Amino acid sequence: MAISETQIDNGIFRVTKWVIEPGGAIPMHRHEFEYVVVPLVNDTMYVTNADGSEIAAELRIGQSYTRPAGAEHTVANRGTATIVFVETEKLS
Amino acid sequence: MAISETQIDNGIFRVTKWVIEPGGAIPMHRHEFEYVVVPLVNDTMYVTNADGSEIAAELRIGQSYTRPAGAEHTVANRGTATIVFVETEKLS
Repeated sequence: MAISETQIDNGIFRVTKWVIEPGGAIPMHRHEFEYVVVPLVNDTMYVTNADGSEIAAELRIGQSYTRPAGAEHTVANRGTATIVFVETEKLS
Repeated sequence: MAISETQIDNGIFRVTKWVIEPGGAIPMHRHEFEYVVVPLVNDTMYVTNADGSEIAAELRIGQSYTRPAGAEHTVANRGTATIVFVETEKLS
């Protein structure tokens, strides 16, 4: 299961905390806005793109990464620990 | 002492990881851009504004907060543990 908590949504930023339990996944979704992810755990997250390609994203606490608008994928936790990260989207 | 590590600076976002040792501080600075902070520790950070007013900012791991462009302050760690957070600025 994946749980999201919207922490900020002020027309400038939308900041969402994501918690993905072991075996859980965020279903296929398309990112409308550029975004930055700040991981809160050290783990591996499996990202399957809309075209079927897959990458193993290595998460390191506090090591941010960014992706462009238009990214479309599912995000899965195939491990045994909970994955947590904070996603900041640039709305304007 | 306060140490900054620029992780992303791509014209859209500037993402900086800040590490403030006990007794350290980020000197007076003005934020040119709106920004979001994602704390990586639970602690109290003392923010002294340019007008001399002071707030104790309670940091909670993964609990983000945002501030407008123009914020001008110093940020001090008066505790005994290292403070770490990731700051995402919206450059455009």
